[in-house]
Amino acid sequence: MPPDIPPQATPASAPASPPAEARQTALALLAGRPQATLTTLVAASADDAVPVGGWPYPSLVLVAMDGTGRPLLLLSELALHTRNLRQDGRAALLFEDTAGLENPLTGPRLSVMGRAAPLAGEEAEAARAVYLDRHPGAALYADFPDFRFWRMDIAQAHLVAGFGRIHWLSAADLTV
Amino acid sequence: MPPDIPPQATPASAPASPPAEARQTALALLAGRPQATLTTLVAASADDAVPVGGWPYPSLVLVAMDGTGRPLLLLSELALHTRNLRQDGRAALLFEDTAGLENPLTGPRLSVMGRAAPLAGEEAEAARAVYLDRHPGAALYADFPDFRFWRMDIAQAHLVAGFGRIHWLSAADLTV
Repeated sequence: MPPDIPPQATPASAPASPPAEARQTALALLAGRPQATLTTLVAASADDAVPVGGWPYPSLVLVAMDGTGRPLLLLSELALHTRNLRQDGRAALLFEDTAGLENPLTGPRLSVMGRAAPLAGEEAEAARAVYLDRHPGAALYADFPDFRFWRMDIAQAHLVAGFGRIHWLSAADLTV
Repeated sequence: MPPDIPPQATPASAPASPPAEARQTALALLAGRPQATLTTLVAASADDAVPVGGWPYPSLVLVAMDGTGRPLLLLSELALHTRNLRQDGRAALLFEDTAGLENPLTGPRLSVMGRAAPLAGEEAEAARAVYLDRHPGAALYADFPDFRFWRMDIAQAHLVAGFGRIHWLSAADLTV
């Protein structure tokens, strides 16, 4: 890490085991929040009018968690985030619940990095059941031909649970 | 629009000029929302315990707009997003106001891509005045030695304002 960055606030290395409280806070956000900010990498484009290839791109999505704790998404092939994921599956999701707070920075938030991939066959059917149970309104468009279910395999997560309470968590920490 | 139909489709190319309504919606989000999801690119690390270098990383920030419509941030050098920006200034901010909606996907949201850079001298002083007027509580930590004011120069923005109402906007479209 750069020498001008003191190590205490954001540990560069993942601790062997985060505190139980951190894991509980992270799991509560994953289970409780119906929506998240999906972040993808803008697909390179031959179109000079959109000169942000490689930039991070945040968008709003509804999320459901599968039986083992992996995020499920329902994405349209027409959407920019999906075009991005088709070129580079590296993605992240921000889960936060700060809407009711006077100072949003006092609320916990979880950044989950992982690889997203479309599902097919039985995996897509299983995802469909879980997702529509969580988001019944999505039944209106889940069968549109341009929609696919996607699943994120978590690589690492970063929890900011409050001032000085910052932790890296592994996929194993978030497996339910 | 039907409340449960997600506004997903996106044009691949930027129109020469977005509708006035799109610009108004975008400017209202920029002026009205005190917080946003900052997205940065995770700085490469020699530490194998955090194997997400290059991944997009979303985090929560408070934002103020400067007099010409550029986003201002107050970031700690101790934070992961700042370490990321020190290595690669390409960033994005998601502004959305969906907390009160039964279906968040019916609400407008704006993804602003640009380059973020730290401010110094008179520019930092001007940013301080604007930022603390918007976020008085930040006075508690604005003078901590690890905090700096940053400004994003907008490269391009992507508005999802509703079903079929998706537009690319330029920096000029968002200049006030």
